[in-house]
Amino acid sequence: MGSIIKRIAILGSTGSIGRQTLDVVRSFPDRFRVVGLAAGRNTDLLRRQLAEFQPKLVSLATEAELLAGDYQLLTLEEIASHPEVDLVVVATSGKAGLPPTLSAIRAGKSIALANKEVLVMAGEIVTTEAERHRAQILPLDSEHSAIWQCLRGEEGRKIARLILTASGGPFRNRPPVELDSVDIEEALKHPTWQMGRKVTIDSATLMNKGMEVIEAHWLFGVPFGNIEVVIHPESIVHSFVEFIDGSVKAQLSPPDMHLPIQYALCYPERLPNRRLPRLDFPKIGTLTFEAPDLEKFPCLKLALEAGQRGGTYPAVLAAADEIAVELFLSHRIGFPDIAKVVENTLNHHQGISHPTLEDILAADLWARECAAGLVSRGNSWQ
Amino acid sequence: MGSIIKRIAILGSTGSIGRQTLDVVRSFPDRFRVVGLAAGRNTDLLRRQLAEFQPKLVSLATEAELLAGDYQLLTLEEIASHPEVDLVVVATSGKAGLPPTLSAIRAGKSIALANKEVLVMAGEIVTTEAERHRAQILPLDSEHSAIWQCLRGEEGRKIARLILTASGGPFRNRPPVELDSVDIEEALKHPTWQMGRKVTIDSATLMNKGMEVIEAHWLFGVPFGNIEVVIHPESIVHSFVEFIDGSVKAQLSPPDMHLPIQYALCYPERLPNRRLPRLDFPKIGTLTFEAPDLEKFPCLKLALEAGQRGGTYPAVLAAADEIAVELFLSHRIGFPDIAKVVENTLNHHQGISHPTLEDILAADLWARECAAGLVSRGNSWQ
Repeated sequence: MGSIIKRIAILGSTGSIGRQTLDVVRSFPDRFRVVGLAAGRNTDLLRRQLAEFQPKLVSLATEAELLAGDYQLLTLEEIASHPEVDLVVVATSGKAGLPPTLSAIRAGKSIALANKEVLVMAGEIVTTEAERHRAQILPLDSEHSAIWQCLRGEEGRKIARLILTASGGPFRNRPPVELDSVDIEEALKHPTWQMGRKVTIDSATLMNKGMEVIEAHWLFGVPFGNIEVVIHPESIVHSFVEFIDGSVKAQLSPPDMHLPIQYALCYPERLPNRRLPRLDFPKIGTLTFEAPDLEKFPCLKLALEAGQRGGTYPAVLAAADEIAVELFLSHRIGFPDIAKVVENTLNHHQGISHPTLEDILAADLWARECAAGLVSRGNSWQ
Repeated sequence: MGSIIKRIAILGSTGSIGRQTLDVVRSFPDRFRVVGLAAGRNTDLLRRQLAEFQPKLVSLATEAELLAGDYQLLTLEEIASHPEVDLVVVATSGKAGLPPTLSAIRAGKSIALANKEVLVMAGEIVTTEAERHRAQILPLDSEHSAIWQCLRGEEGRKIARLILTASGGPFRNRPPVELDSVDIEEALKHPTWQMGRKVTIDSATLMNKGMEVIEAHWLFGVPFGNIEVVIHPESIVHSFVEFIDGSVKAQLSPPDMHLPIQYALCYPERLPNRRLPRLDFPKIGTLTFEAPDLEKFPCLKLALEAGQRGGTYPAVLAAADEIAVELFLSHRIGFPDIAKVVENTLNHHQGISHPTLEDILAADLWARECAAGLVSRGNSWQ
């Protein structure tokens, strides 16, 4: 069978998802060609990636000397919409992923999306534009990949419920009163997944899962009332879809991001890869499920509420959370304060319905200032 | 949306699957019309079904007076191939289902198949004929329905493994030495499913699961070496499919046959049915998995071996098992003797590869005589 080579640009190539995307590309040298790489500050790793993959299109956030080579230095948006790119992997973190994602959509590219903020901040605009330009958004998150796999061959309007699984993070069994005193190292120890620092803290607060519910709402067009979260500490079942007849499908695999990345990159094909780990059910023995504790993990509740309110609220949620996590990681606030900063910022926000991109970016800036201001003004916000 | 009425004939309408099929038909009066009903000996129930559904085509195994009515008395084969029938539900038990299934296939009907013996005895002939006549075989068993649902939108050649789940039956936690003394009532108490007597005993010996592996081999074209069985006492996950990339899909639902029946009847549509029970994962709490004990449950091993040997061996397995279960239910042999009767019969058999239907039916008769003869001759077979 002849295979078509997909030309890939990876935005955020030196981060966790970017590096694992390059692992997948290495597994299939006949399937993919890396034509663009973009990174933030990790210049050393980017240099090595340029030497190995020889892309023609490069973007770097900081001014730094790169290897001499036959490439063009471009902006993220220019790479994302470049005619020689078929698939854009958006593996940046934060709002930086939003403009290049919209560029890629308007150029009709396929987008493999790992950046949470894109859909959390601008889900309505992004999905509307993607429909208009027939650009396909392929989720890279394990939960959304699971739902997407369960929906193969099914009609979206036959969905009764989406049930996103959550590991519960490192503090699942910790008594609520002890959360006041947890330190950064504990919060960064995720029980099942190896990820970046920001998303690991978001997993510990369950903010990450709340954002994933918002993403699922936009990706699959399912109302918030029909999306649930269930705690599943083993991280083997990556999510469930219940159909209108009561039948439920699940996607399962060992917790390894290479699989959802490979699935999105190869889609609609499934390709063999013996390097990916396999499930052994008798060895696994037990899969457990429990309801999330919204009192103990208020970030999840805040995210679900912000999603339901819509408009600029999810952008404010994401921005306030980013500031709050930074403050926690720099020892400025305690773990439970993350939720308090986000809640207070949301309470101060005057939302806009059906916002433009400018409205969203303004709400983002406002929320950052508000969240930082709350903390710098002292304890009155707690 | 306009709906097309499917004209259904149910062979075995008074049995467990037949009655539940009529429950599903009652839920969708605009979708289905029962045009044929066939039953064995339960004349009273058949009379009530005829009064309710007014089918034009009727078959009855025994001579008995039925209600006066505007219908034709026909053979199973005549109903199965009748021009006014779109979908034939084969819910008979034993080899009686084989001739009408072949008639339905040769008439190009869709066949919703609950009868295990059809594929166990004659899987090669049935699937070859179905392909030739473009007749679709829709599984009704919960395990095969699960696999079929997981394969929606996927390519069959991308399957790496099928993993059939088994409840483990009532004797899962019983020490092997105690199986000698179990009585009929205990063997008939299935922990999770309500079914007929024969299949309930087959579930207690795990013979049922072995036959389902043989069926899965023929239904999905997967080699025996790539089909596994895992014990899952909760009967919530109805089976798994692992694809070549290592991704696994599962289908889950409460243990209620109405769902796989509705799925097959409505296929390719999914229709809402609020009367079917829904899963509540926090309430379920735990799903457990363990490897089957082939020493304690030799029937499973015998079935897997017979499936791999192929030819007439699976037909001999099924026939010997039917006799052995009858002997157990009439207090003639003990529970562990079921496996011994089957094993001895298989050991005496001279198999034929790629058998004709006549070869299969001859092997079936031979096996019944052999199995019954072993027991009537006394203890030397044990």
